[in-house]
Amino acid sequence: MAAMMKAAVFVEKGRIVLEDKRIPDVGPNDALVRVTTTTICGTDIHILKGEYPVEKGLTIGHEPVGVIEKLGSAVTGFREGQRVIAGAITPSGWSHACLCGYCSQDGAGTKHGWKAIGGWKFGNTIDGCQAEYVLVPDAMANLAPIADGLTDEEVLMCPDIMSTGFAGAENGGIKIGDTVAIFAQGPIGLCATAGARLMGASRIIAVDGIPERLAMARKMGADEVVDIKASNDPVAAIMELTDGRGVDVAIEALGLQSTFESALRVIRPGGTLSSLGVYSTDLRIPLDAYAAGLGEKTIRTALCPGGKERMRRMMDVVRSGRVDMKSLVTHRFTLDQIEDAYELFGNQRDGVLKVAITT
Amino acid sequence: MAAMMKAAVFVEKGRIVLEDKRIPDVGPNDALVRVTTTTICGTDIHILKGEYPVEKGLTIGHEPVGVIEKLGSAVTGFREGQRVIAGAITPSGWSHACLCGYCSQDGAGTKHGWKAIGGWKFGNTIDGCQAEYVLVPDAMANLAPIADGLTDEEVLMCPDIMSTGFAGAENGGIKIGDTVAIFAQGPIGLCATAGARLMGASRIIAVDGIPERLAMARKMGADEVVDIKASNDPVAAIMELTDGRGVDVAIEALGLQSTFESALRVIRPGGTLSSLGVYSTDLRIPLDAYAAGLGEKTIRTALCPGGKERMRRMMDVVRSGRVDMKSLVTHRFTLDQIEDAYELFGNQRDGVLKVAITT
Amino acid sequence: MAAMMKAAVFVEKGRIVLEDKRIPDVGPNDALVRVTTTTICGTDIHILKGEYPVEKGLTIGHEPVGVIEKLGSAVTGFREGQRVIAGAITPSGWSHACLCGYCSQDGAGTKHGWKAIGGWKFGNTIDGCQAEYVLVPDAMANLAPIADGLTDEEVLMCPDIMSTGFAGAENGGIKIGDTVAIFAQGPIGLCATAGARLMGASRIIAVDGIPERLAMARKMGADEVVDIKASNDPVAAIMELTDGRGVDVAIEALGLQSTFESALRVIRPGGTLSSLGVYSTDLRIPLDAYAAGLGEKTIRTALCPGGKERMRRMMDVVRSGRVDMKSLVTHRFTLDQIEDAYELFGNQRDGVLKVAITT
Amino acid sequence: MAAMMKAAVFVEKGRIVLEDKRIPDVGPNDALVRVTTTTICGTDIHILKGEYPVEKGLTIGHEPVGVIEKLGSAVTGFREGQRVIAGAITPSGWSHACLCGYCSQDGAGTKHGWKAIGGWKFGNTIDGCQAEYVLVPDAMANLAPIADGLTDEEVLMCPDIMSTGFAGAENGGIKIGDTVAIFAQGPIGLCATAGARLMGASRIIAVDGIPERLAMARKMGADEVVDIKASNDPVAAIMELTDGRGVDVAIEALGLQSTFESALRVIRPGGTLSSLGVYSTDLRIPLDAYAAGLGEKTIRTALCPGGKERMRRMMDVVRSGRVDMKSLVTHRFTLDQIEDAYELFGNQRDGVLKVAITT
Repeated sequence: MAAMMKAAVFVEKGRIVLEDKRIPDVGPNDALVRVTTTTICGTDIHILKGEYPVEKGLTIGHEPVGVIEKLGSAVTGFREGQRVIAGAITPSGWSHACLCGYCSQDGAGTKHGWKAIGGWKFGNTIDGCQAEYVLVPDAMANLAPIADGLTDEEVLMCPDIMSTGFAGAENGGIKIGDTVAIFAQGPIGLCATAGARLMGASRIIAVDGIPERLAMARKMGADEVVDIKASNDPVAAIMELTDGRGVDVAIEALGLQSTFESALRVIRPGGTLSSLGVYSTDLRIPLDAYAAGLGEKTIRTALCPGGKERMRRMMDVVRSGRVDMKSLVTHRFTLDQIEDAYELFGNQRDGVLKVAITT
Repeated sequence: MAAMMKAAVFVEKGRIVLEDKRIPDVGPNDALVRVTTTTICGTDIHILKGEYPVEKGLTIGHEPVGVIEKLGSAVTGFREGQRVIAGAITPSGWSHACLCGYCSQDGAGTKHGWKAIGGWKFGNTIDGCQAEYVLVPDAMANLAPIADGLTDEEVLMCPDIMSTGFAGAENGGIKIGDTVAIFAQGPIGLCATAGARLMGASRIIAVDGIPERLAMARKMGADEVVDIKASNDPVAAIMELTDGRGVDVAIEALGLQSTFESALRVIRPGGTLSSLGVYSTDLRIPLDAYAAGLGEKTIRTALCPGGKERMRRMMDVVRSGRVDMKSLVTHRFTLDQIEDAYELFGNQRDGVLKVAITT
Repeated sequence: MAAMMKAAVFVEKGRIVLEDKRIPDVGPNDALVRVTTTTICGTDIHILKGEYPVEKGLTIGHEPVGVIEKLGSAVTGFREGQRVIAGAITPSGWSHACLCGYCSQDGAGTKHGWKAIGGWKFGNTIDGCQAEYVLVPDAMANLAPIADGLTDEEVLMCPDIMSTGFAGAENGGIKIGDTVAIFAQGPIGLCATAGARLMGASRIIAVDGIPERLAMARKMGADEVVDIKASNDPVAAIMELTDGRGVDVAIEALGLQSTFESALRVIRPGGTLSSLGVYSTDLRIPLDAYAAGLGEKTIRTALCPGGKERMRRMMDVVRSGRVDMKSLVTHRFTLDQIEDAYELFGNQRDGVLKVAITT
Repeated sequence: MAAMMKAAVFVEKGRIVLEDKRIPDVGPNDALVRVTTTTICGTDIHILKGEYPVEKGLTIGHEPVGVIEKLGSAVTGFREGQRVIAGAITPSGWSHACLCGYCSQDGAGTKHGWKAIGGWKFGNTIDGCQAEYVLVPDAMANLAPIADGLTDEEVLMCPDIMSTGFAGAENGGIKIGDTVAIFAQGPIGLCATAGARLMGASRIIAVDGIPERLAMARKMGADEVVDIKASNDPVAAIMELTDGRGVDVAIEALGLQSTFESALRVIRPGGTLSSLGVYSTDLRIPLDAYAAGLGEKTIRTALCPGGKERMRRMMDVVRSGRVDMKSLVTHRFTLDQIEDAYELFGNQRDGVLKVAITT
């Protein structure tokens, strides 16, 4: 008789429910991880609302912190009982996309080795980690040991939002002395702000409409903030702050036409729009903001980088004390209470930024 | 009494006329060049039609081949009588944009040193070269001597379309072994095709609807062609040619929503859309072609790189025999006949690709 | 009773001998490939001479072309009977080095995931492919199917010298219009010459002392050659050819202080020395050639890139007809005659460039 | 009768003397700047000792802070009375080197437009700024206005050591999460340490033998220090600190074989040695530290980036408060006392890091 576990399962639009499920079998390249802490992502709320389709019965969640319970027969270099995280993105390492450095577009199993968003598997195409146990595929590429002295909460942002937010800064190609604007200061935008600071931007302008988020933005590294409630024209506000020059890099961290367009408008010629948002409509590039296609503006998008080396780096940054990711955790629940956690987080009640779910 | 010259002048929408004009005075950092050969660009046709605004009375033209007639008092390193070209883009060298490597967005004279499309001066913000003489600003940054043995026609494409087309390939970041699609095979698209070949793409797919252009595309380096007259779904055609994988880089060389969108659709996740077109409408990014902003597709745009070093490189490529730019010149006129040349080129009659205008 | 095969084994310094060996067992992530064609590399001669240490009893050879005989239990996406190559370098895909894009320094199995030259396994740390069968590790990262229509000899250079030589050009960051010098025109230098041509260098200067190699260099893309027998000062010859400017990129393809130093001397300030050679002594950087450390010269080294994506790209280049790698095969032997092949190749007799060994 | 000024002049080996000199005439592209504060660089000491040759009678000094006294007739965009700095490197903007982005190798006036170290003019090939007035060449490329609120001392490090030190970090290509070692913590090494911190290194190891410098290194961003007086094997110390892995990037900031070699030894395969030192002997690359040329280690060198855009960025970093450059100024003199300042700084007495010289 197989052992059973609790898991938060997508039942149907509007319902993610804690259910009993079989603890999965461990294939030769897998690792079974006992989850000690996890969290809920904005993407999970899209799944809950039926805005992002996943199969019914799938376990949700892609931000695992835990302990290795069992290693596959072909897995070496790790030991059972070791504390680890795995990224939201779990690349195979061996697909054509991975071998080109595009681990998040991992097409393992496809004909050509490329698949848009294919690196995102947990809680999307395979069972996720809002459960007592999670099966980590391609374990040798994905298990990242947690250094002694780091708590679960300290590394809880590494699998997704820290890696994603930092990728927004990295994709912007931020250089020492750059001026950078970040549109929206939810958890990912806050991490992008921290990332811009880490990369040497000398002037960081954070945009949002919620005072607590703007205050947190300053803590994460913003030099100036634009409150879109106070200024309903953030583009004009940023152009004024920069004395008409514009910014070198703008990071979009919300996923709306309005923020995308504002980001495009505030970058100087030759600047970069680094997009992090998950969009739900077509996007429009206004002719004037684009200099008719002659302004040498670059538009890039990121999907959370994953894999054990990325996770190692994120945890090293945490350990360095350069950024304080722990302070993004505003609420705590047990796995048994996860439906309450969804209710709070999904409705953005009570000033929530991120929740911690412990088992 | 000042010496006079003939010059093709924008009089009003629909009229570019050969007129008498004063030969300009030469400032300390200028050079006066006697034009021996020039050409007409698609952009000039936009000016003629009133689609791109310039001041009435401006001399048109931005592709000069000629001989130095007179050097400014502060100009060293050149001699009168020397055969030279200057780029369509004539950077100052000293603006903030130039010092960042964005010479085409040269903001010399602006508060911050950045100006969208600011590097394009000839026939846009200062008198151009469809004239007997042209004044080259910042001459030490812009005069590029022609090597012995190269004819005017051999280097006539260097100032604009060769530099632009190659920038399309360069901006794509083409690597050895890449598969590349180029949308539209007018003069610039043909140069982009040649550029993709030069950079090591192993599979080059050229798209157009005119058989002569597709034939020329093969001569410039295309391995395969997609005739949009035969296949009214070039995206499907390219996906079939690539067995469903898509291309690493797509170059847009027309300036329409349809080609922009097709280019975006055919690139694999993580691929680059390198845009060369001058657009006249807002652009739309379809959500599905963009993987909701998570497919890591990059969109870049280029404006013709200029300056004497760029021109030196373009002429070196011509001299190497790697590409045959001369064959793009299909028709020849004298400056006296330039209105006829506009008529032919503007109406794309008689299989015209590029015209040579000699004085 | 286990099946047996023939294999060229390092017995001791001076002796590589064809012996009978067990056909290896196939682990879950392995593939057994029946070798149809292979070759001998200059590195194998170093092993033979005892200059590069390997364990006694090791099967030599790292350039396999063959047919999949048997797939490991966890390997998907391939089928037995498929024609494939594998690179000289067989990355795991999952080490820290691989996940950083440094597959050739693959430290799979080490504490930190980095190991200098660790990606080179065949005929170095595991049995190689001068045998009837070879076991390919991490098969999903390393098996590269051969397209229909390509012969064994056409793809025989892909696993090593083509990938290595091209990496010399790639590491140089060659741009359209660059001037490039390549020192030594053995098989790898010839491939570097071809790579420089593929990447858009407009002036390629090949250096060697053997007339046949200089002739072959012209066939592979060199515009000019410097015969070090005729000119015993290749630096002076190149500075004269470039009218005192020097080259943008120099590629070293021999592994001697003299070629390293000459390469450093001929690059302009800000230029790149891309080194491919395997050195056997310390190297000296002359103060004057280095502008006392202020000339912004970059020195890079490459080790053959491997993995199935790299192999796919190399074969795509072969298929495109852009380069003719087949013509580097000057002599042919069967596996039974491999000791004769070593004798010929090791002594560089009879104008040999590369040998093909068939089974 | 021409106006006269005081200037520190190189008379002969061992003697830099304050003399009366004519205030220079202002050419069309020049600006005359009245120097308010300047400093002495280690390079000036090399000049004093006759180790770096300059012409007798040359005014020394390349780090000017001052006020525009007079603008050349062709200079626009600035006004007399404006507070400015100029970089130690004063690029023309228009040479081939500049147009390729290598402003420090500016070959303005040479046949090909490249000259090793050619961008360094002040106190090297033209009169420098240890004087009451200095003539800034190519003023439109080089004058950088000081923002209100910044003092002379706050921006005094921008022209050279801050720009140089940061270039050491930039040339290293430091990424978020990198481990970096910096060899020597003199003023430039300290700035490299600050630069590594700015670029997101998560673990910074500073090496020196002077306790005060190690203490200052911690203030500038080092996480750990290696005291070469305590540990006479800094390579072993760093390998132990990194648990055998080595560092991603090592910065050399002294100019000795020993530091160069140690830097090469501590980088992991694929790592970068970013060299800042001015060497006075040939350099040796040990075979074992270089994996025989197969370890994919990159060696880069920097020369202080200059030009007004670079200066603007440096001053923006100062203004942001990210780094405290002012604290490097340990001693103050007037121009009349400059010979005393040379004596103190040249002998590294009294814990001197940098001196400020005011007029």
